[in-house]
Amino acid sequence: MTTTDEKKAVGTTAALMVRNGMRVGLGSGTTVAYLIDALGSRHVDASYVASSPATATAARAAGLRLEEADEWAHLDLAIDGADQVGEDGWIAKGAGGALTREKVICAAASRYVVIIDSTKLVSTIGSPIALELLDFGLAATLARLQGVSLRLSERTPNGGVLADFRGEIPNVEEFADRLAATPGVIEHGLFAPAMIDEVLVARDSTVESLTRPL
Amino acid sequence: MTTTDEKKAVGTTAALMVRNGMRVGLGSGTTVAYLIDALGSRHVDASYVASSPATATAARAAGLRLEEADEWAHLDLAIDGADQVGEDGWIAKGAGGALTREKVICAAASRYVVIIDSTKLVSTIGSPIALELLDFGLAATLARLQGVSLRLSERTPNGGVLADFRGEIPNVEEFADRLAATPGVIEHGLFAPAMIDEVLVARDSTVESLTRPL
Repeated sequence: MTTTDEKKAVGTTAALMVRNGMRVGLGSGTTVAYLIDALGSRHVDASYVASSPATATAARAAGLRLEEADEWAHLDLAIDGADQVGEDGWIAKGAGGALTREKVICAAASRYVVIIDSTKLVSTIGSPIALELLDFGLAATLARLQGVSLRLSERTPNGGVLADFRGEIPNVEEFADRLAATPGVIEHGLFAPAMIDEVLVARDSTVESLTRPL
Repeated sequence: MTTTDEKKAVGTTAALMVRNGMRVGLGSGTTVAYLIDALGSRHVDASYVASSPATATAARAAGLRLEEADEWAHLDLAIDGADQVGEDGWIAKGAGGALTREKVICAAASRYVVIIDSTKLVSTIGSPIALELLDFGLAATLARLQGVSLRLSERTPNGGVLADFRGEIPNVEEFADRLAATPGVIEHGLFAPAMIDEVLVARDSTVESLTRPL
């Protein structure tokens, strides 16, 4: 299977997790786009929360019913892609820039499922690590966070700016804690193993769960 | 001395720390207002970064020269008030709602000085603890953060919303770490001892340093 085939396969498989009456969070990215296509074909009576303008547009085009951003207090399920899935269970996200809302959606969901093609599996998480930074004091925040460069892109929907850390990460947990405690960092792209309920990976002609048998 | 006298005394004393050529961060609140008054009378050739619109307005009125928000990468000094200063060195801030920018300013400064009247000294930090929350997923974030209620106020300059935690805090460091790692929390009002270089407190007719003799 090509990477595109794998993305399509895992997106289609994950769509089967959505049941009538569920409120479901949708991540962002190319694999989630295949998930949205598959959900549009299934005609399940569910409602959805989008993590990015691109996902909202795709979901509307597929005929999915979107919740307004501020009216939901809980999600039954959330499904999202990832840039890297490490053997230790840590995940890196944010290449697409939607990391902050994706993490809010992750935290709000009873079940958070990550869907990836096999190229996303890594032995240990490495850089780049995506960051959303506060505009106020940005030059000072960048001066303290060594190895972080701004992306040339517009503001996020949260009013922040996107950046990427490049460098060594000797201990991913310590690095995540340090980023979380750094003033001026709105969010970082590292998701701890405890936040993730299941990883579905498409490999060769199968979709397998790294957590438990499907 | 009344509390007002104490605020004036500590603000006036702290103003003496500002020297020609310094770039200085200014916190927010009533004690900082006295600091700004004193700085306006001193005619030091320094430039300033304001943590809130109210501070910016007061600084301009006092004739202080303000830096534009994004053009500074480092502060020589920052001076700010606090709501609570605990015996263990932890500090709680944010009653005025400027906590996020105050913390960015704190982190950017070579020397961070907290100025308080004696009513702010507490044995251990208690609630309320101020929070700035992301608007996206707000209902879900509030549902997870038990004991947190929104303030009835407009958006912050960062686009976030203000809230306060009320409840028991058995371990302030663990609580701060948990808040920092919670998706949807832009910033919290707890400042760790390592972030603070000096606390000046006005008590009776003196201003004393809790860190070293003045």
